[in-house]
Amino acid sequence: MGKSLTRKIIESHFVSGDMTPGKEIFIKVDQTLTHDINAVMTYLAFEAIGLDRVRTECSVSYLDHNLLYVDNKTPDDHIYLQSAAKKFGVYVSRPGNGICHTVHVSRFGVPGKVSMGGDSHTPHGGAIGMLCIGVGGMDVATAMTGVPMRLTMPRVVRVNLTGKLRPGCNSKEVILEMLRRVTIKGGLGNVYEYVGPAVAEMEIPARATIANMGAEMGATTSIFPADAQVKRFLAAQGRPEAYTELLPDEDAEYDETIDINLSKLEPLIACPHQPDNVMPLHQAEKKRVQQVFIGSCTNASYADIAKAALVFKGHHVNEDVSCTCAVSSKQVYRQLMRDGYVEMLLDAGVRLLEIACGPCCAIGQTPATDGVAVRTSNRNFKGRAGNPTAKIYLVSPESAAATAIMGTFATAEDIMGENVKILDSIHEPDQYDIDDSMILPPLSPEEAAKVEIVRGPNIKFLPVPEPPQETLDAPISLKARDNVSTDDITPASAEFSSMRSNIPLMSQYCYHRYDPEFAARAKEMGQSVIIGGENYGQGSSREHAAINPMYLGVKAVIAKSIARIHKGNLVNHGVIPMLFEDGADYDRLEQTDELHIDNLREQIAARRVQITDKTKGFSFWAKLELTDKEIEVVLNGGQLRTLKKQLEAEKEA
Amino acid sequence: MGKSLTRKIIESHFVSGDMTPGKEIFIKVDQTLTHDINAVMTYLAFEAIGLDRVRTECSVSYLDHNLLYVDNKTPDDHIYLQSAAKKFGVYVSRPGNGICHTVHVSRFGVPGKVSMGGDSHTPHGGAIGMLCIGVGGMDVATAMTGVPMRLTMPRVVRVNLTGKLRPGCNSKEVILEMLRRVTIKGGLGNVYEYVGPAVAEMEIPARATIANMGAEMGATTSIFPADAQVKRFLAAQGRPEAYTELLPDEDAEYDETIDINLSKLEPLIACPHQPDNVMPLHQAEKKRVQQVFIGSCTNASYADIAKAALVFKGHHVNEDVSCTCAVSSKQVYRQLMRDGYVEMLLDAGVRLLEIACGPCCAIGQTPATDGVAVRTSNRNFKGRAGNPTAKIYLVSPESAAATAIMGTFATAEDIMGENVKILDSIHEPDQYDIDDSMILPPLSPEEAAKVEIVRGPNIKFLPVPEPPQETLDAPISLKARDNVSTDDITPASAEFSSMRSNIPLMSQYCYHRYDPEFAARAKEMGQSVIIGGENYGQGSSREHAAINPMYLGVKAVIAKSIARIHKGNLVNHGVIPMLFEDGADYDRLEQTDELHIDNLREQIAARRVQITDKTKGFSFWAKLELTDKEIEVVLNGGQLRTLKKQLEAEKEA
Repeated sequence: MGKSLTRKIIESHFVSGDMTPGKEIFIKVDQTLTHDINAVMTYLAFEAIGLDRVRTECSVSYLDHNLLYVDNKTPDDHIYLQSAAKKFGVYVSRPGNGICHTVHVSRFGVPGKVSMGGDSHTPHGGAIGMLCIGVGGMDVATAMTGVPMRLTMPRVVRVNLTGKLRPGCNSKEVILEMLRRVTIKGGLGNVYEYVGPAVAEMEIPARATIANMGAEMGATTSIFPADAQVKRFLAAQGRPEAYTELLPDEDAEYDETIDINLSKLEPLIACPHQPDNVMPLHQAEKKRVQQVFIGSCTNASYADIAKAALVFKGHHVNEDVSCTCAVSSKQVYRQLMRDGYVEMLLDAGVRLLEIACGPCCAIGQTPATDGVAVRTSNRNFKGRAGNPTAKIYLVSPESAAATAIMGTFATAEDIMGENVKILDSIHEPDQYDIDDSMILPPLSPEEAAKVEIVRGPNIKFLPVPEPPQETLDAPISLKARDNVSTDDITPASAEFSSMRSNIPLMSQYCYHRYDPEFAARAKEMGQSVIIGGENYGQGSSREHAAINPMYLGVKAVIAKSIARIHKGNLVNHGVIPMLFEDGADYDRLEQTDELHIDNLREQIAARRVQITDKTKGFSFWAKLELTDKEIEVVLNGGQLRTLKKQLEAEKEA
Repeated sequence: MGKSLTRKIIESHFVSGDMTPGKEIFIKVDQTLTHDINAVMTYLAFEAIGLDRVRTECSVSYLDHNLLYVDNKTPDDHIYLQSAAKKFGVYVSRPGNGICHTVHVSRFGVPGKVSMGGDSHTPHGGAIGMLCIGVGGMDVATAMTGVPMRLTMPRVVRVNLTGKLRPGCNSKEVILEMLRRVTIKGGLGNVYEYVGPAVAEMEIPARATIANMGAEMGATTSIFPADAQVKRFLAAQGRPEAYTELLPDEDAEYDETIDINLSKLEPLIACPHQPDNVMPLHQAEKKRVQQVFIGSCTNASYADIAKAALVFKGHHVNEDVSCTCAVSSKQVYRQLMRDGYVEMLLDAGVRLLEIACGPCCAIGQTPATDGVAVRTSNRNFKGRAGNPTAKIYLVSPESAAATAIMGTFATAEDIMGENVKILDSIHEPDQYDIDDSMILPPLSPEEAAKVEIVRGPNIKFLPVPEPPQETLDAPISLKARDNVSTDDITPASAEFSSMRSNIPLMSQYCYHRYDPEFAARAKEMGQSVIIGGENYGQGSSREHAAINPMYLGVKAVIAKSIARIHKGNLVNHGVIPMLFEDGADYDRLEQTDELHIDNLREQIAARRVQITDKTKGFSFWAKLELTDKEIEVVLNGGQLRTLKKQLEAEKEA
């Protein structure tokens, strides 16, 4: 049998392990990316590791998320990150250049390469046949040292796209349809490989929308073939030499197949508060919309914005709607301006925000109290927009524009009627504007040696956990519901995001909106355990969702299931991720129950732990679904200690 | 003797009083303006007054200052303000349309009219021969009722402009030179009337820069003649019918004359932390600049931004500088885009912010710790940019662009050499783009009657003070230095600004950066007195700098001198503004001293108050430099009570 594209790339980067789905493998990583609101901890870790320079082909530090600068903390972080990048041979994409994923695929992406990024939407780059995996910041720091990275060998799912999207539909409908079918946790352990006749017609940014938001299914990543479309895209980016054709074998073997006929899709909408709560837009209960946001890495390409602008043409934003647009990169903005689309947006009363991630992760544009927000971004968790009373709906840019005009959910066809067909005439440029003046290349080792790292007063230390002891006595500090997101654990907003370089401060706001008493309670308890439901820690890759609880004394999370990236972050930061053997035990536990574990280290090594609830007087079992390496990391007290040992051993050898 | 332009406009609007400088007059007000971060209290006051509709020719509510929406409070405020405007017959300029002063002069300004605005930079409109006065929000609410407004008859100062600005100089140099000469308190009680041969050459936005920033001298306002330039401007705005020629008489009488030869000016810079700390830019101690901001009502016109763009042409922002630009209005943005200047900014690595006031009042773009910020805006008070460790320098857009390129203070000539002359070729458009689709006109009375005002949970009541009692026993809650600004009293920032509709919350942060213990101490004291130095309450017109202390129990401010608008706000909100008869008494008083006043009401009426320091055992005298009407307001317990009485009396009569 032939090989999937995924398997081909993994094989070409394989270092060791067992390439059976679910087993641990180690692979070489070519590229890394980080962004401003997660990365300070990453570079603090890299500093602690002690190498002079990154050992990847290319590592890029993007300053793109928090450009509001509501106080000194973020500009201080940006100065730190730029100086650290100079010190360690890392590219910097400066504020205003664009959103990390858009810039990365455009200016650095190479088919067949493996990239790891400290952001859950790193799979975006799968659009050009790269294997791009979102991980926690400590993993990125690890990848930057050049050591092979551990990965659970994924199942590979063939997604066969046939037919043709109707005018007014966007590739957003494809990924929303996937979410509807697969659900937010159904993708765990999978790579989704998109193939089929409809793929050939799909331009790179449209593919990127799908690959990007595959993160919402909990997937390892998503990938498209490196075909003629990729060739055209890389040529348009002035990088034809980066192209290599890379396709799955015709008789490639897959673990599962999903068929989607694009012709049958209609405009879809993800309703609050999960991205898989998807239905046809016209079936959603009509509401007065207070806010529309067009933008984010998911849906702010040239074609996305141009199509939205055409929907707006001759219309105006409803007087009760605040409609903002943030284009994904300077490159795209300039092209849209030249082609008259920016003016169309202005004419329609759309507010042009700075080129940045911004509102997607609550860096500004918080909806009003109880506000209905319609967004083209990727997540609609409660509180994701900075206000837990808001209701977030996810749609395509075309539907977002129509909604802004109508003041209630609408599609492009509702506005344009027959004319909706003209949207099909919009294509990505044959030649993008090439201007990398906002990208600072790495310094030579000699120049880098002279750089001093600049550390603002808000930039504190990276906390390093202790290895687990033989006995654990700890109460339950929190019993969490199903589908707790990392936004619940570490709230998104300009204010909270800017605290990410200061764990002593930020940890005081751990679970702030979910349970404002949690941080004080956990601290008071000294050490404690969190009980989770299904899909614990879904969403953003931010490792602060592991570091903050760890800093507050949380020693273990026992949940029904744990999202992939968050599990990795818990391991990296020395919090033991356990799963209930019998989910029914979840119901028997209560907050403040005193738990007791004997022989913890032996039980961790055996991947099966007996826990006694001393308060209720019963025992139950939990398992550890961790690889050998992960077990080692947990027993070492996290990844930093493990990596240092490993590098020292290499040095001696 | 002939009449000044100022006197002509005052005479044409005169209702009663004594037109001797320093005496009280009452004048008809034609137009009002408010903006989002000050106005909620204004419309709450208007609601409390009980009228159905404003009684001005034109009242406009601008949503322009805080467009970041870092939480629900500001979008909630915007919804309230839009609904209140609909209810009361007020225009709304929606978010994204532009900065209030720019839009107002362009779309509503009429030579010879009198306007009052709840923003200290309202004098901006003086550029077209309007008499525009910045006042507190309660004054705007009063003006909206149509009652004649009290004003201290100003001295009129003739500013004779001769010569011609050198290429690379901006009208910003003129107002910085004025500040250097007049100082930040020297303009108290004055109107600056700009005349002379150089005025004829000066386009409206250039004049507006001067009129706008006349506020920094503490002046009542500044004004230019309505001449051929105004005719051209109004025609370019598609409003030729709004034009009336309006000039001072050739033999007009003035109270003072200042001569400025523009040919002798060079690029100037206002150094931290006062806008009158002015010197030639090349004499300022060179510093590494961390941030450049080009924008604000003062200096973000078409010509300003086009010239900055030309300075940038062929250059790039220094890699250690964060350079942002916020254009003043949608109208100007569109024109700049069509003419290629927006692309020039993008090419140079300038970050394009949303069209708004933004960074000027610390709504984002806070500098880094100890950061040197170079800005084209109007104020450089400590903390004004949201970070008290930052050092703010004020310059022209041309110098700002040059500085962004060099990474240290520089002028356009430093960058362009001989070519700096091409900047002289930039003029304002002959025809602006006319698009008022972001301005909602007033509803008909019938439609307005149906409107329901929408009040978010953060919008609390307007506190109403009690009339002063016969005896006052109160300790000193604060002894403030000279030149305390309203930014010191009510800190600027996205976070604090968004609290302005909630006095119980915001008052907790009164003097937060100046003396973090103040609010708790004043509250604990129950009632208290603030001691101030010279020029107490300078800067922004925000009445919260009076309301918050009043809410915390402050009954009087005793200072060496008090800035004009703030004194009015104290009167309006029932805080007695007193001045030391002997400034030396300031030195004898200490924080927490217990003060005692007998026969307070009689003494207020007599404008002379004896105060005993019971702690130190001595007495001293203070005077009240208030008009008859102001005395009445103080004795009534503020303007709301006074106005209600007045309107009831009118109704009965």
